[in-house]
Amino acid sequence: MGDHSIPEENGGDPSSSTALDIYPLSCYYFGSRDSVSLNTETRADRLLRLRANYDAVGMRSCVAAVIVVELFKHPHLLLLQVQNSIYRLPGGRVRQGESDTDCLKRKLESKLSAGEDGRGPDWEVGECLGMWWRPDFESVLYPYLPPNIKRPKECTKLYLVKLPPSRRFIVPKNSRLLAIPLCQLHENYETYGPIISGVPQLLSKYSFNMVEP
Amino acid sequence: MGDHSIPEENGGDPSSSTALDIYPLSCYYFGSRDSVSLNTETRADRLLRLRANYDAVGMRSCVAAVIVVELFKHPHLLLLQVQNSIYRLPGGRVRQGESDTDCLKRKLESKLSAGEDGRGPDWEVGECLGMWWRPDFESVLYPYLPPNIKRPKECTKLYLVKLPPSRRFIVPKNSRLLAIPLCQLHENYETYGPIISGVPQLLSKYSFNMVEP
Repeated sequence: MGDHSIPEENGGDPSSSTALDIYPLSCYYFGSRDSVSLNTETRADRLLRLRANYDAVGMRSCVAAVIVVELFKHPHLLLLQVQNSIYRLPGGRVRQGESDTDCLKRKLESKLSAGEDGRGPDWEVGECLGMWWRPDFESVLYPYLPPNIKRPKECTKLYLVKLPPSRRFIVPKNSRLLAIPLCQLHENYETYGPIISGVPQLLSKYSFNMVEP
Repeated sequence: MGDHSIPEENGGDPSSSTALDIYPLSCYYFGSRDSVSLNTETRADRLLRLRANYDAVGMRSCVAAVIVVELFKHPHLLLLQVQNSIYRLPGGRVRQGESDTDCLKRKLESKLSAGEDGRGPDWEVGECLGMWWRPDFESVLYPYLPPNIKRPKECTKLYLVKLPPSRRFIVPKNSRLLAIPLCQLHENYETYGPIISGVPQLLSKYSFNMVEP
């Protein structure tokens, strides 16, 4: 009889998969703070703003965080839900001259922490997991630069953000921070859209090491 | 007016994306050799064989190669097509005690080269891009270990294989080696299945550097 359990390691193969430590959801504190005003821009106004920004500074660059916790022995992705409908990865737009890492830390601090007091542990931004391109202002995004597109209007990069064994998350009262199991996200394009429903694949190269607290 | 072209680099940001050199399809020679006999095993026979192998040596491990070339300024994935229907990434089953890298080199040599003469350049096996798990012998694969599955029956790992600026591909007459554009694979689950249709996402972290010959 052979060994039927999951192999721990691929015997020193240099190309073997990477381990990622994840901690139980119960290791983290989740609190709330005052609501923030929601963007009430019309679609036409948004389009005008995007065009003006593109003319002024070129392609829009965005960053988004892939943050994983453990629950019921299965990896869960942290998502923000706004107005009980739209699911988003935490993140936002990169400023001119700002690095992706600095932007993502700033966005995580403003969206998932108490604000600017800076008392929490620093956010550990890891490797880029994927990039999605928007060929025109109102088009959907693609995980490649579509053929014949020389002037894309937006690039959104997904970065792995590794959590410490403990930290506080503080989100505005009018948004919710949810932990969704990877098995619910996979191929669930309808509910979560193309980027979030593809995150399980982007994470699939990692062997999750579920750390006991 | 800002710079509207695609940014080359993210100004020394350590977490910025990785470049991948790809070469035009025309840099490669494609030839054929005698047909190989196809597997005519029935579904019941296959299931018996898989169960017997699992009892003898445990979980089945497979490896598959993600090989990219440039055509019409867009990245294309190399796929094998057997019997005008099934598309496959080149690869196969890892032997007991064999490393993933050694297995993939052996499979690429037997499936994409003239055979055992070993005169071609070595295959450069790069990083693991993803892993897919089969919880039971006849189930589909998932890009995570499904909840409550302690004894998966198969794990297939996808590895990036980097091509040199030139090489010969020799495939049996009864299979075809095709270069399919990433834009055709993306979300095309019906034609290519979950693994291949997800490859554009797994590759999306790379900035393709299309090298002129």
